[in-house]
Amino acid sequence: MPFITLTTDFGTKDHFVGAVKGAIYSELADAKIVDITHEISPFNITETAYILKNSYKSFPEGTIHIVGVDSELSEDNKHIAIELDKHFFVCPDNGIISMIASEIQPTKIVEINIHDRIESSFPVLDVFVQVACFIARGGNLTVIGKEITEFKKLVEIQPKVNQAQTQIIGGVVYIDNYGNVISNISNKMFNDIGKGRTYKVSASRYSFNKIYKKYNEITGNDLQDARQFDGNKLAIFNSAGFLEIAIYRSNLNTVGGASSLLGLDYRDPIIIEFFMQSKTEYTLLT
Amino acid sequence: MPFITLTTDFGTKDHFVGAVKGAIYSELADAKIVDITHEISPFNITETAYILKNSYKSFPEGTIHIVGVDSELSEDNKHIAIELDKHFFVCPDNGIISMIASEIQPTKIVEINIHDRIESSFPVLDVFVQVACFIARGGNLTVIGKEITEFKKLVEIQPKVNQAQTQIIGGVVYIDNYGNVISNISNKMFNDIGKGRTYKVSASRYSFNKIYKKYNEITGNDLQDARQFDGNKLAIFNSAGFLEIAIYRSNLNTVGGASSLLGLDYRDPIIIEFFMQSKTEYTLLT
Amino acid sequence: MPFITLTTDFGTKDHFVGAVKGAIYSELADAKIVDITHEISPFNITETAYILKNSYKSFPEGTIHIVGVDSELSEDNKHIAIELDKHFFVCPDNGIISMIASEIQPTKIVEINIHDRIESSFPVLDVFVQVACFIARGGNLTVIGKEITEFKKLVEIQPKVNQAQTQIIGGVVYIDNYGNVISNISNKMFNDIGKGRTYKVSASRYSFNKIYKKYNEITGNDLQDARQFDGNKLAIFNSAGFLEIAIYRSNLNTVGGASSLLGLDYRDPIIIEFFMQSKTEYTLLT
Repeated sequence: MPFITLTTDFGTKDHFVGAVKGAIYSELADAKIVDITHEISPFNITETAYILKNSYKSFPEGTIHIVGVDSELSEDNKHIAIELDKHFFVCPDNGIISMIASEIQPTKIVEINIHDRIESSFPVLDVFVQVACFIARGGNLTVIGKEITEFKKLVEIQPKVNQAQTQIIGGVVYIDNYGNVISNISNKMFNDIGKGRTYKVSASRYSFNKIYKKYNEITGNDLQDARQFDGNKLAIFNSAGFLEIAIYRSNLNTVGGASSLLGLDYRDPIIIEFFMQSKTEYTLLT
Repeated sequence: MPFITLTTDFGTKDHFVGAVKGAIYSELADAKIVDITHEISPFNITETAYILKNSYKSFPEGTIHIVGVDSELSEDNKHIAIELDKHFFVCPDNGIISMIASEIQPTKIVEINIHDRIESSFPVLDVFVQVACFIARGGNLTVIGKEITEFKKLVEIQPKVNQAQTQIIGGVVYIDNYGNVISNISNKMFNDIGKGRTYKVSASRYSFNKIYKKYNEITGNDLQDARQFDGNKLAIFNSAGFLEIAIYRSNLNTVGGASSLLGLDYRDPIIIEFFMQSKTEYTLLT
Repeated sequence: MPFITLTTDFGTKDHFVGAVKGAIYSELADAKIVDITHEISPFNITETAYILKNSYKSFPEGTIHIVGVDSELSEDNKHIAIELDKHFFVCPDNGIISMIASEIQPTKIVEINIHDRIESSFPVLDVFVQVACFIARGGNLTVIGKEITEFKKLVEIQPKVNQAQTQIIGGVVYIDNYGNVISNISNKMFNDIGKGRTYKVSASRYSFNKIYKKYNEITGNDLQDARQFDGNKLAIFNSAGFLEIAIYRSNLNTVGGASSLLGLDYRDPIIIEFFMQSKTEYTLLT
């Protein structure tokens, strides 16, 4: 029996999540349901994409991911089911998929068309659950939808590179539980564009000359007094592979995180500048 | 093995939920535990009833629902186990059951009497878990309790209809994750009393001449510029079948929801007035 | 298949928890994962210990507990796996274990040494999951680590007793979902030191002459008007066996809990004074 994951903006207080799980178990008593999160900011597609992109691959192939964010059906917001990277996604066609898998072509896309049988103001419960359980039982996507070739694209979250290839201009796409600020600049892009050149990272009015790989690299070898680094700001490629501006061992609930302390919010620019060569080398060459 | 659901005001930070799940799994390694919510406002019976009423039916028949809200045992707050609508509830006798199932007669009610064997300041862990696991193994309610015929009734959340049948006076019973304000006026009651007459909904200092069935009906056919409706207030019969005052695509965490924006809180009145006939018809008739 | 529990400071919004669960299920499709909590205050070892200490024993023997708090690997913060009290713990060696089981000797401790094969900035996902799944499959700890005899001790949370044995000076170690303030003074210590003497509990500028066993003991037999006691402060030995300062039926979100109302925070002192005999007895004797 495949896994079914849930990613929604329902919160965990209301009856919505309980009702959806009950409905799945009523269809498939042996279902294995896993919450990814229900704390998406209401209607926030960018957040949904960031979270899902960084968790779906951990699940076994064949897992079915239900996305309950901005899912009310309309002419402009169709429901789709997608097979992609050997995973299934049941979601609204609101651009989420293009953000999750910008570099992966879907194997199959269908526009769900079982709505004529279901009048609903709670489509995740009434439609997505049916579709997910149908897929879980091994059903073919084309039975519950009409095959289509296009889905809505949202590409605004891609960072830009200037023509001279000396600058990557990214932006904040996510702020995590620790208040750390995550950009859309990937380690891969940094390597591809930077090609080993020296660089400077700018965020708000701060700049960084080094991007760490682990948070505690900041303490160097100072084991005796590592706590003195608490609260220092740093740039890091995080475990998801994206450039992140962090405060070392910070607590969002008390002293604040990078977001509040450095004044960085969603969509604010994070910029990497690359230098042709180091100043010394430049002097030698001229 | 039947499902066991948990609905509590324990929150998800403390050890309470983990301890309860561990205790169930220690009794029944194959138990299937599902969280409905642990975010009930402390001791809030009305919220508990709203959430449970709108989720329990999604679960398969035979599911056992543990309710851990205001459950400390006292002379005035007995523990009961109930079979109702082919589901089981293990809960305090504090009126919750009368709100969950005002129109359904319980099949069986017992006052739990295994307390003489258990001295406890955490009855959900020590008593409710035992009772739920006993039922899950197929045990008969009368073994763990004394059959009774009455349970505590709380009826304050029923809306009132005036004698002329021109007005339903309901109240706010729940505020959801989106800040939407939910009344106790059901779609069924609206139809039964209204009988197709025109109407006006009043909430705080706002009024509405239409109750929608889906949130995005508010945008009509304006697909090009549907976002202009973001932030509009509307009345809707929600997926649970109750009259709700909502803000279209609002975010409680940023701009606020209906509750904060319209100044509506728990128990505030929501009123529907019905008109004998439309003004035009009235003129024609006189 | 044994249970695997998760106790982290990841929060439930980010992708971290979903990614960890997906990774476990990818290794062990039949794994039984239970969340203890993901709401630990960032890097807070004392909170982690309090929550884990009061929940791990509820789980069946053989359960594997993953602790994802302050888990970045460094020279000063090794990763360890421990068998203790017939449970397994996979965690950083940052003192948590000494707080969980101050009175229980571990059966076996190993320093995890599979890191040379894994370069990671997300050790819970990359290292702890591997170790937990290895143990779940029945693997021997010594295969994934080097046996050691010592682990880091943190003893600061033990209450102190004065030489005359007339005073226990404890401190606040946890504030729960209801705002109740929990000290490190156990019922056992109270009995061992107090030996039945009369006593006074002091917390902030308040004092208490009685420690209750159940919250609603405060209402005595006044069933008619039990609600008049709402909001009263009281001292109680809670279900975990620790001295707690509580507000009867309080709501942290509205009126506040003991923490905010009495001005009590982490590490604030809670003191029990014992009297040699009652005043009357003293008078009689002199």
